[in-house]
Amino acid sequence: MPAQEGDRATLARVAAEAEVSLSTVSKVLNGRGGVGDDTRARVETLLHDHGYNRRGSAHVSTLIELVFGELGTEWTLEVLRGVERVAKESGLSVVVTQSGDRRGPAPDWVESALERSPVGVVLVLSGLPDESVRQLRVRNIPFVIIDPAGDPPPGVPSVGAANWSGGMAAARYLIELGHRRIAVVSGPDDMLMARARLSGFRSALDAASIALPSEYVRSGEFHRESGLEAGRELLALPEPPTAIFASSDLQALGIYEAARERGVIIPDQLSVIGFDDLPVAAWVGPPLTTVRQPTAEMAEQATRLVLGSRDASAGTQQLRLDLATELIPRDSTAPPPPL
Amino acid sequence: MPAQEGDRATLARVAAEAEVSLSTVSKVLNGRGGVGDDTRARVETLLHDHGYNRRGSAHVSTLIELVFGELGTEWTLEVLRGVERVAKESGLSVVVTQSGDRRGPAPDWVESALERSPVGVVLVLSGLPDESVRQLRVRNIPFVIIDPAGDPPPGVPSVGAANWSGGMAAARYLIELGHRRIAVVSGPDDMLMARARLSGFRSALDAASIALPSEYVRSGEFHRESGLEAGRELLALPEPPTAIFASSDLQALGIYEAARERGVIIPDQLSVIGFDDLPVAAWVGPPLTTVRQPTAEMAEQATRLVLGSRDASAGTQQLRLDLATELIPRDSTAPPPPL
Repeated sequence: MPAQEGDRATLARVAAEAEVSLSTVSKVLNGRGGVGDDTRARVETLLHDHGYNRRGSAHVSTLIELVFGELGTEWTLEVLRGVERVAKESGLSVVVTQSGDRRGPAPDWVESALERSPVGVVLVLSGLPDESVRQLRVRNIPFVIIDPAGDPPPGVPSVGAANWSGGMAAARYLIELGHRRIAVVSGPDDMLMARARLSGFRSALDAASIALPSEYVRSGEFHRESGLEAGRELLALPEPPTAIFASSDLQALGIYEAARERGVIIPDQLSVIGFDDLPVAAWVGPPLTTVRQPTAEMAEQATRLVLGSRDASAGTQQLRLDLATELIPRDSTAPPPPL
Repeated sequence: MPAQEGDRATLARVAAEAEVSLSTVSKVLNGRGGVGDDTRARVETLLHDHGYNRRGSAHVSTLIELVFGELGTEWTLEVLRGVERVAKESGLSVVVTQSGDRRGPAPDWVESALERSPVGVVLVLSGLPDESVRQLRVRNIPFVIIDPAGDPPPGVPSVGAANWSGGMAAARYLIELGHRRIAVVSGPDDMLMARARLSGFRSALDAASIALPSEYVRSGEFHRESGLEAGRELLALPEPPTAIFASSDLQALGIYEAARERGVIIPDQLSVIGFDDLPVAAWVGPPLTTVRQPTAEMAEQATRLVLGSRDASAGTQQLRLDLATELIPRDSTAPPPPL
């Protein structure tokens, strides 16, 4: 498809303002080498400022990019499954990259992805540097973030789970079982989803007029090790909780271990609820009560969003989708022991 | 790089024998459309029979293909991690496909992979149809199979674990603890790695003159459900075993559940050993004694093999690499209960 007249004029103006040739602008657009970093950044900023969007290209890609900050837990695999499923329906293949960390991909990723001209990009991390957003926007490559843990940059579409309601459902379930001494192990304070789960949990306790003493609130990474550490601290308190809400299944498994160490029986002496519903949640002993996060569905929705938005207007680019969470009762929760 | 004189002559001869034009032969080589399935197969067979290997191409790909028969368990994730690591070192990106089942990829996969002209292909499945082998060979795309569960086709390079020694190590460990009533849950009979684990296990028992009654030998899929079923049967025997060797960690978790159901305490009344050393093995209660399979390392080696073999002679293509397994003692094993 030839560039439209308006586009050509824009490119000429950008070249003039950046004091480079049209061919340099074209190199930047096509992710080719031979352009210094400063020049590249200047041209991209100008393209972005002029609202340039590339409309179509002779090259029809069949690749979709999936970028993880961490190839961490089984959660990762659920995401991959969801993206694979939708990609396959659409006759696309998935390029999987582990890049950077949860705050954003490494700087070299965008360059190498651009060379592949993907149909779209699904990012599983908590943020995307403005620089990357600009690079993708200018080339009209749609992208979406799954479960942003920080505030996604304005206008970046994202798909997540209803974390707040999930935290609330967990607390309500424990309250209905009769618990009053309920502790929580939260995720990292800088991750929005962790804050949302904690806040939903707090709201349910507030509504039931149950106090949440500060020593009952712990936080750490979503990993098992953090749950183990927090579990040890909580069970060592003079008045230990009768129930703990962990913000991830892996944290809950750490609490299981802390309970084993002290000879505390789950659920007779301690109730534990997790979050995620990884396959392992159903496999441990006792099987873990948890808040199911529809991970594979989130990944499918994100992929559909990216594919559907190829020709979408700026309006749908603003989309934020939160899929419902669901409490899955299993055997790690019971009424509190008699006082 | 232009085709060499000898190549051109070969292509002309193939075109003549297949009664098609040279341009049709070229279409087949480049994975382009417009050629009927029969013609394509005829041309490929002739190219293969004439020993044609494409030598280089103008297009330098930066993609490596990773194909899974199943996106199943956490084992999958370990493989992905290993391949990602080596790909990144080499500046390559990984296209991940779930295709077909463990016997081989779906027929359409090869076509779509060929369009991407990958640098190499890593397959995680138990077999590869002759047709696919021929298609990859003719285009000089190196490939390797990770942990083939059946006999790999002749000349197909593969990377696996020392399954036989692993099975033997598990049995020896149980024997040294004093067990004599030892049962085994094997994997699917049609998978070579399952047979190797069982055979190593049998050899250790034989060497110690310990009988293995046929009711102590069960088999099923590598999944948890099979372990649960086999565990229920074994624990219901008039003379139940005091130790069980499961051929996968997930089977071992099924045995944990069967033991819980009957109130059998692990390890006091029953010792359990798994195979794989998935992360979950260390997380369950009690932490699982298991045979570590160096999955990520196997994936790394497979990827290196594929990258290194780009210019390798036919000799190194025959390579079969078995990485060592290692017994990881944890808390699910103990001496047998007194009679």
